[in-house]
Amino acid sequence: MQNFTYQNPVKILFGKGQIASIASEIPAGAKILVTYGGGSIKKNGVYDQVKAALEGRQWIEFGGIEPNPHYETCMKAAELARKEAVDFLLAVGGGSVLDGTKFIAVAACFKKGDPWNVVTGAAHAEAALPLGCVLTLPATGSEMNTNAVITRESTKEKLPFSSPLIYPQFSVLDPETTFSLPPRQISNGIVDAFVHTMEQYMTYPVNSPLQDRMAEAIFSTLIEEGPKTLADPTDYEARANLVWSATLALNGLIAVGVPQDWATHMIGHELTALHGLDHAQSLAVVAPSLLKVKSDVKREKLLQFAERVWEIREGTPEERIEQGIEKMRAFFESVGAPTHLAAYGLGAEVASEVANRLQKRGWLGLGERQDVTPVQVKHILLLAA
Amino acid sequence: MQNFTYQNPVKILFGKGQIASIASEIPAGAKILVTYGGGSIKKNGVYDQVKAALEGRQWIEFGGIEPNPHYETCMKAAELARKEAVDFLLAVGGGSVLDGTKFIAVAACFKKGDPWNVVTGAAHAEAALPLGCVLTLPATGSEMNTNAVITRESTKEKLPFSSPLIYPQFSVLDPETTFSLPPRQISNGIVDAFVHTMEQYMTYPVNSPLQDRMAEAIFSTLIEEGPKTLADPTDYEARANLVWSATLALNGLIAVGVPQDWATHMIGHELTALHGLDHAQSLAVVAPSLLKVKSDVKREKLLQFAERVWEIREGTPEERIEQGIEKMRAFFESVGAPTHLAAYGLGAEVASEVANRLQKRGWLGLGERQDVTPVQVKHILLLAA
Repeated sequence: MQNFTYQNPVKILFGKGQIASIASEIPAGAKILVTYGGGSIKKNGVYDQVKAALEGRQWIEFGGIEPNPHYETCMKAAELARKEAVDFLLAVGGGSVLDGTKFIAVAACFKKGDPWNVVTGAAHAEAALPLGCVLTLPATGSEMNTNAVITRESTKEKLPFSSPLIYPQFSVLDPETTFSLPPRQISNGIVDAFVHTMEQYMTYPVNSPLQDRMAEAIFSTLIEEGPKTLADPTDYEARANLVWSATLALNGLIAVGVPQDWATHMIGHELTALHGLDHAQSLAVVAPSLLKVKSDVKREKLLQFAERVWEIREGTPEERIEQGIEKMRAFFESVGAPTHLAAYGLGAEVASEVANRLQKRGWLGLGERQDVTPVQVKHILLLAA
Repeated sequence: MQNFTYQNPVKILFGKGQIASIASEIPAGAKILVTYGGGSIKKNGVYDQVKAALEGRQWIEFGGIEPNPHYETCMKAAELARKEAVDFLLAVGGGSVLDGTKFIAVAACFKKGDPWNVVTGAAHAEAALPLGCVLTLPATGSEMNTNAVITRESTKEKLPFSSPLIYPQFSVLDPETTFSLPPRQISNGIVDAFVHTMEQYMTYPVNSPLQDRMAEAIFSTLIEEGPKTLADPTDYEARANLVWSATLALNGLIAVGVPQDWATHMIGHELTALHGLDHAQSLAVVAPSLLKVKSDVKREKLLQFAERVWEIREGTPEERIEQGIEKMRAFFESVGAPTHLAAYGLGAEVASEVANRLQKRGWLGLGERQDVTPVQVKHILLLAA
């Protein structure tokens, strides 16, 4: 196990009716900016629950944060927050609303030029407005971590950034608020949580059996509960198990003391930025092919994955590795996430396009060993054609 | 899954050489009270590392906190902390030193009479000195939770208390600091972590597959790594895995949304208070018998435990339950923790003694269903004779 530092102060309020408790979590007297997306919260009753919980509090709102939240939109919200001297941000929605709100929190306090520099890594966030969240879509894990992914529409760039300043003070996870989501969003959530876990697990062994088993616990739970919650969206228990799995898949716990990959995400972000695939769809396309291309350096963990997660115990090591990856692919397909570019109307030319883009950006080696080169990225995407 | 609130802000600094980082974790200008136990930290180099890390800081020390830390001793330390206007407590040692220091933190700030009332539950802690910890014994999980267990020597009472005020600000876990521990302490740590996990897992099903699998991950890791670290105390990896397992066994994570038992602990505390068994020894005695006596109401989880943790898949349900419990007993014995009262020189009369004590205290129903009556406690201890 590698040395590590771990601290995650986010307060989780999980379960039915928990939205009512947000008032006591937001400092008295704070002026609140409620942020949300396309307005689904006004149809499913969540907006009304939030409104009721905030009764007697001073609050304003900003709607219209897009999936893959746009820098351009968030800058408008940051301007509003500044103008109105907002003290607290309350994100109500899925990972995109929350990620956008994390950026708004930073941008509203940023005084050294363009906050986009924080996203590119050219500058660091030095302050952020405190924020809380009512999560209505289980997927990104953003509700209990320091990450956000922001898209700059004008340049079609989608980039992640991270800062301890953007930990939510609290996150409300009420599985009932997710009942009205369309199947595609749930499918995306299952795949997203699965691949998040994969990015922290599928590297090389460093003698971390507890982290490994906890990651496998998430895989197995998603495999078991994912189809249940798709089949019956109002099955509270199955949905609750998906929600909690998605949170633990990316709250930092399974990452302690182990190497991490994230190449699938970086390649996937390009597919989303260029061609509009949903985030999880991009992961479903990249992950199986990436594991095949990197099966030499990920060999031990691929064998462990095949055995422990998929109970594959027969055949040569190569056969077991192949079967494990194909089981994962079949699982993604079965929950409604196609794993080939063609299913999204994309041809093999995408492979060069993405590889060239990474090359230009100077990202010459992704992954836990920084050995996923642009040439390999092209190979991975050709394999996913 | 049941509704829950979860928040754990403890900063974990894990790995080789991490003691050096404590200075930057303690507020500048704070007057520090370093607390420790019987002095083993002066022999194994930990005291010197702490001294080096605190160079230039203002600090005093208080040694001599016993295993099962005494109220009487801790009150002296609290008096010292008050007299010297200490701002920060740094516990250096195992769970007993840390638990004692948690009580000192509360007692030093308590203004409404005898702080023992906080332990009995007659009063609540309203303030506490901030504290940090350098943990030198993997077992109690106290390094990442809100619990402490204090013993009042004069009345032979051993009682737990809990408060969010006593979360450590940080905990340093350097597995190397545990290399010099005697085998009995490591044996105790393995059993303690195992039974902590058991108390949160072995109840009744509430459809919490992720919590279940995470608990099973801890069981399996202890079963795998425990014997390794006993066989070679300086195997860094095995020891690191034990240390991290013990922390996650009781940091609240596997307890979210599920019922909890803790009857084994409450019965065990009496054995320790009355007859001086090590805490983990008392758990090794009580746990197997308790599971047998409660096998009707714990049936589903006992079957799951037998199958997933011990790979027992043949025989009638009753046989599988029995085998699972006996496998656990054999594991405790194999790591050096006898599971019968006789091994500690105690006879069957202890059964009535403990049952009467619980009866007198009005604790008429322990466990997740409050159905472990004094009569059943007697039965459990007779079975453990």
